[in-house]
Amino acid sequence: MPLENIYKYIDANSQKFVNDLVQLVRQPSVSAKKEGIQKCAELTAKMMKDAGISARIIPEEEGNPVVYGEVKSERSRKTLLFYDHYDVQPPEPLEEWICDPYGGEIREGKIYGRGTSDNKGDIVSRLKAVQAYLETVGSVPVNIRFLVDGEEEIGSPHLPPFIQKHRGLLSADAAIWEFGETDRMGRPCIYLGLKGVLTVELRARGASRDAHSSEAPLIPNPAWRLVWALNTLKNEREEILIDGFYDEVEPPSAGEIEFLRNIPFEEKEEKRDLGLKNFLRNLSGLNALKALLYQPTCTINGLLAGYTGIGPKTVLPNKAMAKLDFRLVPRQMPNEILGKLKKHLANRGFGDIEIIEHGSTEPTKTPITESFVQVVIKTAEEVYCKKAVVYPTSAASGPMHLFRNWLGCPVVSVGCAHAESRGHAPNENITLDGFIKGTKFMAAIIHYFSLS
Amino acid sequence: MPLENIYKYIDANSQKFVNDLVQLVRQPSVSAKKEGIQKCAELTAKMMKDAGISARIIPEEEGNPVVYGEVKSERSRKTLLFYDHYDVQPPEPLEEWICDPYGGEIREGKIYGRGTSDNKGDIVSRLKAVQAYLETVGSVPVNIRFLVDGEEEIGSPHLPPFIQKHRGLLSADAAIWEFGETDRMGRPCIYLGLKGVLTVELRARGASRDAHSSEAPLIPNPAWRLVWALNTLKNEREEILIDGFYDEVEPPSAGEIEFLRNIPFEEKEEKRDLGLKNFLRNLSGLNALKALLYQPTCTINGLLAGYTGIGPKTVLPNKAMAKLDFRLVPRQMPNEILGKLKKHLANRGFGDIEIIEHGSTEPTKTPITESFVQVVIKTAEEVYCKKAVVYPTSAASGPMHLFRNWLGCPVVSVGCAHAESRGHAPNENITLDGFIKGTKFMAAIIHYFSLS
Repeated sequence: MPLENIYKYIDANSQKFVNDLVQLVRQPSVSAKKEGIQKCAELTAKMMKDAGISARIIPEEEGNPVVYGEVKSERSRKTLLFYDHYDVQPPEPLEEWICDPYGGEIREGKIYGRGTSDNKGDIVSRLKAVQAYLETVGSVPVNIRFLVDGEEEIGSPHLPPFIQKHRGLLSADAAIWEFGETDRMGRPCIYLGLKGVLTVELRARGASRDAHSSEAPLIPNPAWRLVWALNTLKNEREEILIDGFYDEVEPPSAGEIEFLRNIPFEEKEEKRDLGLKNFLRNLSGLNALKALLYQPTCTINGLLAGYTGIGPKTVLPNKAMAKLDFRLVPRQMPNEILGKLKKHLANRGFGDIEIIEHGSTEPTKTPITESFVQVVIKTAEEVYCKKAVVYPTSAASGPMHLFRNWLGCPVVSVGCAHAESRGHAPNENITLDGFIKGTKFMAAIIHYFSLS
Repeated sequence: MPLENIYKYIDANSQKFVNDLVQLVRQPSVSAKKEGIQKCAELTAKMMKDAGISARIIPEEEGNPVVYGEVKSERSRKTLLFYDHYDVQPPEPLEEWICDPYGGEIREGKIYGRGTSDNKGDIVSRLKAVQAYLETVGSVPVNIRFLVDGEEEIGSPHLPPFIQKHRGLLSADAAIWEFGETDRMGRPCIYLGLKGVLTVELRARGASRDAHSSEAPLIPNPAWRLVWALNTLKNEREEILIDGFYDEVEPPSAGEIEFLRNIPFEEKEEKRDLGLKNFLRNLSGLNALKALLYQPTCTINGLLAGYTGIGPKTVLPNKAMAKLDFRLVPRQMPNEILGKLKKHLANRGFGDIEIIEHGSTEPTKTPITESFVQVVIKTAEEVYCKKAVVYPTSAASGPMHLFRNWLGCPVVSVGCAHAESRGHAPNENITLDGFIKGTKFMAAIIHYFSLS
C-alpha cells in the first residue's frame, strides 16, 4: 500500500517541511506593492526542483512571472493540475500582529506569518506530497502540473493571456484549487465554485475647478450627481436596480439546498467578530447562507469627493469618485454586467459619469456529480476521519473559471488552513498538524485520483 | 486736500505694503486644521502696531484668538469698524496650484497664495490706509476699530460670545465687511447682505471593522446608507427635500429686483472660467442672478469612505462620511434648519446617521437707504472712476449678522479682490494694482465717512 509508506515519509520529514515553509514565508511577495516578487518566484522554483519536480519561471510581458512545474507519469495519461499563488496580501496593519509577519514564528503549535494560510502553506504541502511520492514509490501515478500565479491577490490580471498562450502546457483532467480549511469541528471543507467579480470606478466631473460653495445655485456638483447615480443602482431593501441585472441568476437547486443544510454556518461567532447585532435584512441560518453564496452583490468599496479633512470647508468640488465591486453568480458574465451598468446609467441621464473597469473574473462551479468531486470528498473523509463539509459554491472570487471553463476540467478547492487562519488579516497562521495532515491529504488525492 | 497726500504716500510705499502682504500670506493659518493660528494672530497684531494702531490679541476661552485694534480720533465721536479675519481655507488640492500656496509668489502683476484675496489682502490694505492717514495727516478723522477674527473660515463659532462679552469695545456707527472685488470691467462691487450658512458632517457606521466584500450579502455598508440618506435631501431638479426647508423663504422684493437688473452679471465669463456650457437648470441672466442671491442651497462639500487609492480593493468599509453646507436666506435660522434636518433623517429611517454641526451663521441685510451705504457707493465711484455695482445681498456667508443685528450698525462689504481671485480654490490671487487701489479706497471711505 503506497499511501502508508508515503504517510510515514511525511511524518518522518515533517520538521524539514515546516522549515521549508518558514523559509518561504520569510520571503515577502506582496504583488500590490511589487515587493519581493522575483525572489519569491525563484525560491518557489527552487523548492519545486528540490522536491524532484521539473520547474521553470515563465516571465510574463507585463505581469509577475508564473512558476510552472511538471512531473510526468510513466504509467498514466491522466493529469492533475494544482493552482496556487506565491504572492500575498500586504501585511498592514502591522501594529495588530503579535509577531513579525515575515518571521514564520512558531507558537503553540501554529506557524504565524503573512501567506501561511493564503497560500504558501498549500504550496509547500503540495510540493511535499509529490516529493513523498517520488521518494517512496519512485514515480507519480498521474501526470502532475503546478501553476503558481504571482498576481492572485491583485485579481490575476495577466492570467487569461498566459493561459491562452500556454493552453497545451496546462491541459488537465482535474484541478485542485488554492484554498480550503478545516472548520471549528475539524471537518474538511470542500469548495466547488467561486463567484465572479467586476470592479469599476465611477467618476463624475463638474466645473473645470473647485469653486466656492456660495455658487451652488449655478454650478453642477459632481458629488451630488454621483450620489444620485449610485442611488439608482441599489435601494434600501438591498435590491440591485440595474435593468436586467438578475436576468441570468438562478436560485440554488433543491440538491444544492440540501448541501447547504449540512454546512455548519457559524453565525453567532461571525456576528460577534463583526460587532453586529443582525445581518442585513435580518438574514439568519439557511437564508443567510443562501444569500452569502447565491446572491450577487453591488458594494461601494470607496467614495471620495471634495474636502475630507477635519472640520468644515465650504467648497463645491469639481470631481467625485466611487469604487464599486459586483460579486456575480453563475451565468452573470462581468462584461455583460458592465454593459448593463453603462446602459442603465445612460438611460437614467447619467451618461456623463465615466465608468472605468478595474478588472473582473467570471463565476464558475463544478457540479457535485463530477466523479473527481466524489473522489475528493471520499479522500477527505478518509484522511480527516470526519464528514466533509461541501460548499456547492463560495462567496469569494478568483480566476477558477479560466480552468473550469477554458480548459474544461473539474476544479475543487481544498487546503490546509483552519477556521481561524485569518487570511488577509493580521496574525495569519496555520497549525503544524493541519499543515502535515494537509500534505497527506494531497498525496491521498493523487493516489485516489489515479485509481478513479 | 488730505486724500491727495494720502494717495501719494500709498503709491510711494506700495512695494513695502506688498512685502507685508507676502509676509502675512507666508504664515499659514488654517483654522480648520488649527495650523499656524497663534503665529498668524501675533503677526497681524505686530503689523497693526507697525501701522500705528494700538493692538492686542484677545484670547478666547475655547476658540482662536481675536486680534483687536483701535485708533482714537481727536476730532470725531463717530466710529468706523473694520471686520476681517486672519484665518484661511485649507490649501488642498495642492497638486492644482501653479506655485506654493504659502509662497506669496508674484507673477505677471498678481500675488498668489492662500488668503491673498480672502482675506489677508484686505487686512493689509486696511491697516495701510490707516497708516497712510497717520503718517500724512497725523491723526484719523473718525475713531477706527479693527476686529480680526481667527475662525471666519469655520463659521466663527466663538464670535457670538466674544461680541456679547466685548459689546462696548465693538460699538460702531458703521462697519466695513471683509470682502469685495472689482468685476471684469473694473467696476467696484458693493455687497449689502450675506446668506447664512449651516455646516454639518454626516457619519454612517457599519461593522466593528472593515470586511472582505464577499460578505456583502450579510454586512451593512455605511457607504450605501450614506448615499441613500443624502439622496433624500435633494433631488436631481435641485429641490431640497427636507420638510419645511423653504417655509421662511421670501422672494426678492420688486425694489431688489430693480437692483438686480443693474448688476452686470458676467455670465459668459463666469461660465468660461468654470469650463461650463450651462449653469444648473439652464439658468441664465436675471434668473441666474436671482437664484444665486436669493435661493438657499444644500451642497456636498466632501465625501469619504473605504479605499480611495489607485486601482481596486474589494473591501466593505465600516464607516462613511459626508460634509455638507446649507446656504440660508433671510428668515432661515441655522438652528431651525439643523432641527429640520435631524427630524427629516430620523423620519426617513436614517436615525443611525450621526449629525455633527461644524458651525453656522445667520443671514442678514443692510437696507440700501442707509446713509452709510450711499457714502460707500459714492466713494467707490470716485476712486474707481466707474459706476459701482450694488448687490442688495450676496451669495456668500459670514458673521455679519452679529454686527448688523446685535450691534445695530449698517454693514457694507467692499474689498480689493478681482473677478478671478479664486477664493477658497487653488491659485487664489489678487492683482498688485487692485491691492494698492483697494488701499486708497479704504482711506477714501474713512475720509468721506468723517464728512458725512
